[in-house]
Amino acid sequence: MKILVIGGTGTIGQKIVSHFSSDNEVIAAGRTQKDFPVDIGKSASIHKLFIKLGKIDAIICAAGEAMWGGFNELLEEDYYIGIKSKLMGQVNLVRIGKNHLNPNGSITLTTGILADDPVVQTASAAMVNGGIHSFVQAAALELENGIRLNAVSTGVVEDAYKKYQNYFPGHIPIPMNKMLRGYVRSVEGKVNGQIIRIYD
Amino acid sequence: MKILVIGGTGTIGQKIVSHFSSDNEVIAAGRTQKDFPVDIGKSASIHKLFIKLGKIDAIICAAGEAMWGGFNELLEEDYYIGIKSKLMGQVNLVRIGKNHLNPNGSITLTTGILADDPVVQTASAAMVNGGIHSFVQAAALELENGIRLNAVSTGVVEDAYKKYQNYFPGHIPIPMNKMLRGYVRSVEGKVNGQIIRIYD
Repeated sequence: MKILVIGGTGTIGQKIVSHFSSDNEVIAAGRTQKDFPVDIGKSASIHKLFIKLGKIDAIICAAGEAMWGGFNELLEEDYYIGIKSKLMGQVNLVRIGKNHLNPNGSITLTTGILADDPVVQTASAAMVNGGIHSFVQAAALELENGIRLNAVSTGVVEDAYKKYQNYFPGHIPIPMNKMLRGYVRSVEGKVNGQIIRIYD
Repeated sequence: MKILVIGGTGTIGQKIVSHFSSDNEVIAAGRTQKDFPVDIGKSASIHKLFIKLGKIDAIICAAGEAMWGGFNELLEEDYYIGIKSKLMGQVNLVRIGKNHLNPNGSITLTTGILADDPVVQTASAAMVNGGIHSFVQAAALELENGIRLNAVSTGVVEDAYKKYQNYFPGHIPIPMNKMLRGYVRSVEGKVNGQIIRIYD
């Protein structure tokens, strides 16, 4: 398969690239990628990437940011950081990307446990994750040509646990190999419109 | 109690106003309300309303719109109609409204079954409902002075069933009195950070 991974240099993205590279042609794209630069926060940037790529078989997105901050401190515009990037960035990736997929291709988005089980400082981050969960279920009802759409939602992954553990008291770190299974289920399985939850 | 109901002339809002009016002082606000006009899509309008009202005990929001449309037809800007109104409008109502509530007050938002069980043409509408579900759970963790935050999520209510039934094949219409119980549980009960689901 020809697989596009956006956010291929992040904690999760680099594991995805490494895993799928053994048996597939993987294109790693992202804001810091020289050959395939893309900022999902900008539709024009997404369009440009797909024109360069030609038809592909799978899209995996492990990119997208959202602002963390105390609920009393977050300003209206702070919410729009996540809305433009992790929420509408991923929505636009599906809107545009579906037209550049071969039949029976797949799109896999990334969310996280905050959507279902948030912690303090995540009013904005949880919101965008929850928005994607409902969007995936809705948009999947209307995709054509056998194209599938899912989201992988994991707990704090092991490689990020040291940095984030104080924000997630009692949460269970998710081994990177377990996290990867979510993406494999979406790309190589037949599920559609699913939120693949890996929380423990 | 002094209860603010935003969207008090809508299908759901007018039942809420009527129910709570028997034992409380209810202020019905909305875009078409002469005495208490408010457009939740605009933060300045929300600020203005609360300055006029003084301290209150409960806020109920039954306002907020989102664009319906086929996934292949919805444009990026169409999603922002719901983002600005039903999503960030309700977020801003909590951000601003919490400062105008008496201790142990409550805020009750309105979402809907689309968040969990969407139908075609609701990629945008489902998304904003799902965003609110996660937001409510996250923001409730940080509210102070005993202030509580919940969302009521119902299936298609009976009074709107004729208009919407073709969009919701097999869905069960929710009697208006059953729908009202969700708001009563949030306002008069002690629940916090809950999505009160009334789907059958």
